[in-house]
Amino acid sequence: MVIVLGIDPGTAHTGFGVVLSRGQHLAALDGGVIGTGPDEAIERRLARIHARVCDLISEHRPAALAVEDIFFGQNARTAFAVGQARGAVITSAGLSGVPCYSYTPQAVKQAVCGSGRAEKGQVQRMVGALLALPEPPESDHAADALAVAICHANSSSVRLALA
Amino acid sequence: MVIVLGIDPGTAHTGFGVVLSRGQHLAALDGGVIGTGPDEAIERRLARIHARVCDLISEHRPAALAVEDIFFGQNARTAFAVGQARGAVITSAGLSGVPCYSYTPQAVKQAVCGSGRAEKGQVQRMVGALLALPEPPESDHAADALAVAICHANSSSVRLALA
Repeated sequence: MVIVLGIDPGTAHTGFGVVLSRGQHLAALDGGVIGTGPDEAIERRLARIHARVCDLISEHRPAALAVEDIFFGQNARTAFAVGQARGAVITSAGLSGVPCYSYTPQAVKQAVCGSGRAEKGQVQRMVGALLALPEPPESDHAADALAVAICHANSSSVRLALA
Repeated sequence: MVIVLGIDPGTAHTGFGVVLSRGQHLAALDGGVIGTGPDEAIERRLARIHARVCDLISEHRPAALAVEDIFFGQNARTAFAVGQARGAVITSAGLSGVPCYSYTPQAVKQAVCGSGRAEKGQVQRMVGALLALPEPPESDHAADALAVAICHANSSSVRLALA
């Protein structure tokens, strides 16, 4: 059995998803979005994201934190903003002694949809199906976070360790 | 009197500088580099940077944390890495209730050297002169951190508040 915390970092919306993997069986323990407002100062926004991720780690005691790598075709400004939110999140893992794993967007889509070129809606539907949710996650941030958690839970290293 | 903590964020080398401003008088209270090794996991590196900045805040109780904006001519990968380290640093400020201020590299050079196009060595020398250090800071990361702290201490808003 392994618990993975997946995070899709962003200053305005940070998606989170907690996935329990037991053999071939996957289940969602938690999922949602940490939202912060543009009127708030950046230091307060990042501190809030960081604190919430610390809370999720205390609550679920995940064996790993999984995050998506950024797609480097993006412009530097976007990369910088995502990097900042990701720094706040990864710091939470580091302070709690939880190891971090990073996956390319292609690897995550491949793990969840069987194709590295799947579209957003397809990821949401497949996350819902793989976790046997009553319906797909409404937020694509939460879906992306659950997807990267599934990707890590199904990675060969975790499978080997569980075997 | 105002105390400013300046930070030059980077995963491998984060420069820091603590500047005390009293009227026209500036003094360095602290300065140096937080170094982390490439063999360490990213979550441990960011947590170490974050914790050290928290310590500096506890020790010096600055009124503000000042950081340089990134130069957006850089590529996305560099912007992402600097953003990550900056996120770890800014989170420290947010958790401690210290407001963050951000300045363009041009504004920092202008404040310290009188020209937005000054070179690294010139920044180091001027930082040494403005803070009456026995010699310029050896590390350009520490010099850049002290420079952004000076830039904030000399900004019109701080001058007005002190007047």
